[in-house]
Amino acid sequence: MGSLGSFRSCSGLFLVYIVLISSLIQASVVAAAIKGHFYKWEVEYMFWSPDGKENVVMGINGRFPGPTIRARAGDTIHIELLNKLHTEGVVIHWHGIRQLGTPWADGTAAITQCVINPGETFSYRFTVDRAGTYFYHGHYGMQRSAGLYGTLIVDVAEGEKEPFHYDGEFDLLLSDWWHQSVHQQEVGLSSIPFRWIGEPQTLLINGRGQYDCSLAAKYNKNLINECNIKGGEQFAPYILHVQPNKTYRIRIASTTALASLNLAIGGHKMLVVEADGNYVQPFLTNSLDIYSGESYSVLITTNQKPNNYWISAGVIGREPHTPQALTLLNYLPNSVSKLPKFPPPVTPPWNDTARSKAFTKKVLAHMNTPKPPKNYDRRIILLNTQNKYNGFTKWAINNVSLSLPATPYLGSLKYGLQGAFDQANPPENYPEKYDVMKPPVNPNTTVGSGIYKFGYKNTVDVILQNANALKTGVSEVHPWHLHGHDFWVLGYGEGKFTNNDESKFNLKNPPYKNTAVIFPYGWTALRFVADNPGAWAFHCHIEPHLHMGMGVVLAEELNVLVIFLMRLLLVV
Amino acid sequence: MGSLGSFRSCSGLFLVYIVLISSLIQASVVAAAIKGHFYKWEVEYMFWSPDGKENVVMGINGRFPGPTIRARAGDTIHIELLNKLHTEGVVIHWHGIRQLGTPWADGTAAITQCVINPGETFSYRFTVDRAGTYFYHGHYGMQRSAGLYGTLIVDVAEGEKEPFHYDGEFDLLLSDWWHQSVHQQEVGLSSIPFRWIGEPQTLLINGRGQYDCSLAAKYNKNLINECNIKGGEQFAPYILHVQPNKTYRIRIASTTALASLNLAIGGHKMLVVEADGNYVQPFLTNSLDIYSGESYSVLITTNQKPNNYWISAGVIGREPHTPQALTLLNYLPNSVSKLPKFPPPVTPPWNDTARSKAFTKKVLAHMNTPKPPKNYDRRIILLNTQNKYNGFTKWAINNVSLSLPATPYLGSLKYGLQGAFDQANPPENYPEKYDVMKPPVNPNTTVGSGIYKFGYKNTVDVILQNANALKTGVSEVHPWHLHGHDFWVLGYGEGKFTNNDESKFNLKNPPYKNTAVIFPYGWTALRFVADNPGAWAFHCHIEPHLHMGMGVVLAEELNVLVIFLMRLLLVV
Repeated sequence: MGSLGSFRSCSGLFLVYIVLISSLIQASVVAAAIKGHFYKWEVEYMFWSPDGKENVVMGINGRFPGPTIRARAGDTIHIELLNKLHTEGVVIHWHGIRQLGTPWADGTAAITQCVINPGETFSYRFTVDRAGTYFYHGHYGMQRSAGLYGTLIVDVAEGEKEPFHYDGEFDLLLSDWWHQSVHQQEVGLSSIPFRWIGEPQTLLINGRGQYDCSLAAKYNKNLINECNIKGGEQFAPYILHVQPNKTYRIRIASTTALASLNLAIGGHKMLVVEADGNYVQPFLTNSLDIYSGESYSVLITTNQKPNNYWISAGVIGREPHTPQALTLLNYLPNSVSKLPKFPPPVTPPWNDTARSKAFTKKVLAHMNTPKPPKNYDRRIILLNTQNKYNGFTKWAINNVSLSLPATPYLGSLKYGLQGAFDQANPPENYPEKYDVMKPPVNPNTTVGSGIYKFGYKNTVDVILQNANALKTGVSEVHPWHLHGHDFWVLGYGEGKFTNNDESKFNLKNPPYKNTAVIFPYGWTALRFVADNPGAWAFHCHIEPHLHMGMGVVLAEELNVLVIFLMRLLLVV
Repeated sequence: MGSLGSFRSCSGLFLVYIVLISSLIQASVVAAAIKGHFYKWEVEYMFWSPDGKENVVMGINGRFPGPTIRARAGDTIHIELLNKLHTEGVVIHWHGIRQLGTPWADGTAAITQCVINPGETFSYRFTVDRAGTYFYHGHYGMQRSAGLYGTLIVDVAEGEKEPFHYDGEFDLLLSDWWHQSVHQQEVGLSSIPFRWIGEPQTLLINGRGQYDCSLAAKYNKNLINECNIKGGEQFAPYILHVQPNKTYRIRIASTTALASLNLAIGGHKMLVVEADGNYVQPFLTNSLDIYSGESYSVLITTNQKPNNYWISAGVIGREPHTPQALTLLNYLPNSVSKLPKFPPPVTPPWNDTARSKAFTKKVLAHMNTPKPPKNYDRRIILLNTQNKYNGFTKWAINNVSLSLPATPYLGSLKYGLQGAFDQANPPENYPEKYDVMKPPVNPNTTVGSGIYKFGYKNTVDVILQNANALKTGVSEVHPWHLHGHDFWVLGYGEGKFTNNDESKFNLKNPPYKNTAVIFPYGWTALRFVADNPGAWAFHCHIEPHLHMGMGVVLAEELNVLVIFLMRLLLVV
């Protein structure tokens, strides 16, 4: 009831942040002098035509998507971010970067930091400790959907080598695009009656798509307009120009708000070599499933007839109402104007879950990947359900729909602000008799801001348990993303997880990732070590689902953070 | 260059605010126990159809416009405002309330307070010291245009009487409405090339208008659709039901983003009795000019044939592309379905400036109004020009376009944060040879955050000097609004103000107002006493003009504020 709201406010923590961060900055100035990358970024809305239809996007330094960051493992990234929006706060999350020892740089509003208000500047400074394919994006409201994203590539450290050879590389950042503003989308999601955002109008590759025309119209003269693209347009496709008989690494990351995608390259198999910043056991595939929050690297060899080939990405997992994203693989010196002989690869049937599962299970850790601990210290089971709360439609975890507090958890935890969020721990399981194959008998959920707390270096198992949504016969795909860590994906299963399923866990070469999908009516078992003191978001990476409460917050021993800080300070 | 932006931040001031405000709250609890009005408000976007076309508006407690506040002179208003927006800050300004001794409650973002961030609560607590017709509205970005406004009525203190009689009253809050979101409008205004917001789609009376139909279609069968309104619609007109042979007070306030309006009531003359919270010498008029930021009370007598009569409000001062706002004066017990015999009053020609000036000059102070000091201590002349800055289109005052700092002035001033805004004082005049009748020879402006500082109880003259805009032959109307004070309008003149014009000043009964218009190519002379310590906005009340930099900030002796605070604290 504090009439000033002084406690439940972001501002009150500011002074402690100053102390905390300025010390760190002093400490890291030394490192920056060695391998520092300094960027000044300005975030603002701007008119843009991602798909040929003019709209407003969130741009960085006048660009959409934002600038690509490229660094080497071990480098320090320092981004001085100026918010030039008119009335909105902003933060940026560095997706896949574990922020070892720098939890305040994770860029999650209400979790690790106060939002950067208009006119304010905030410095993100962190180390990119490991080579891989990453990206960054807004993590406040639905600003990711508004276009606040870009690519972050980390090369191996100077003198080190990737475990595979390639002659050149490309980065494809996949996203989906709506013509309705995110402001309207947000209102719809929190309205009674509920208004769903619907399927995206367009899929984008590197921020480029085509809405009312198709690059591939010539194969289907029915109804689709041919695109009249000269090449300089904002919606002109990003074409991959290659030399014949070379090997290329294509880095593919998905920051879609909703869509799960399947990507294929006409006439070329892909060798999958990396997932979420970790090398995998290489495997060949004709098409790649990629869920929001995931990243992959594939190698292709340009050993086909020198020509143009389609690259296509289409929706899976939901009944698609969005055309495929298209671009070309262009063998130089051919002109891009000569379209491929064959139409674009067909996206597999959206509801062929067996195929999707089979693909996902091919992703296994490279032999040099850290192995999971054999045993766990604690296991929590997280039931994913769609619910109602006071007439609003929500997603909930063990019947709690996440409601973020005004004061960020990280500071609240560190400074013991017990009134800042719900102190009761959220449930670690769900009622035994709950039938995951049916809509919730009692659809009413609770909302809360409680967190899961773990001791330092606890080995934690998380069983993500999918269930039926509110409507009979519907269970959706949810890609869960963990901040601050990678986890081992020990297994996927059907129906309700039971302790007997543990015997099927893969402890030998489970993929080491930061994002893992749960399939409809299934479960996914994850294991991670709580070795990174901080407050970490763990949530469905579907933007409207998170907005509707589909996430949890994990806290890891913060006293250890003090030790980290002390250690850093001792360096200077 | 502080890499943390720690200084140029809103948050750093928070602790001092706590001390400052919590002391005051303790002090005012005593008063509140006597005559307090406590409201809990929640601000959020919601779907609404202000003009029959569904859109998103900023609502308070699920209502648009926000709830009407009604109190008596001397009462304390306490509003606990919860920001339920998703990513936007918010503040509310209490337009016309002078905030004597409570400058932190004025609700101007970056001037008197940090914005209230999503999830945060802020308490506005202030005294409404004087009876009159006021309103409240957003004062951040263009949130007023988004619909964040409502009416605030202060009745005379218990036992006191208005200086005129009436049997009943109505409140009409006038506004204008665009179908394009304010987010898009803001982007357009700060884009290269510049995109003007254009004329409003609809004029609203109490948040209600009709876009693709007309209430008065029957008088013009040409092209206009007749409205099919049942009465419960959000865009159904607010009808004034009256008894015959009575006197009614109609309070009229304009919170338009752009439009200057002329309001008329078919068959009824209006007796103007109040302007901006001050009584005026009553005068009769057939129609009332009202500029954004102004409020009036008129008395009408229902002495006409018992019937229905049109109330119309149309655009003046700009070439209108917006239909009149319409509603009915309904003599009970007549049905409202029978339309008036005559069509709605015709709005005078938009460019009949002579008529507008004649109307404005009729507004003179009631004899009991405080008289202006005979002499001034300081005179500043503010040239209003349209300019360019790095390719952006701006409005500037003496060639400085206002750029608000991240840290609010009020705290910066009180605590001597000299880096928080430009310390150099902005110019108090403009070059003598500047030709106000022509576009600027050098259209380039500067941007700045410098302020005008005044000693306690200084008598200040402000000459608002209009000029030609960027385009030859164009000079616009600008209604200037001063926070924290009323001013005497000493005179209006043509062309360039010279000291000789001083002889024409009205020192006898100048109207005492908080908003005064400058006419195209003219000047307006104001006088006020700097007797309210604080940091006060003084700006063109046209929302996009302010957004483009058309304002200044005045600071009044803050040491005196300490005295005020001490005095209040001594009460408890």
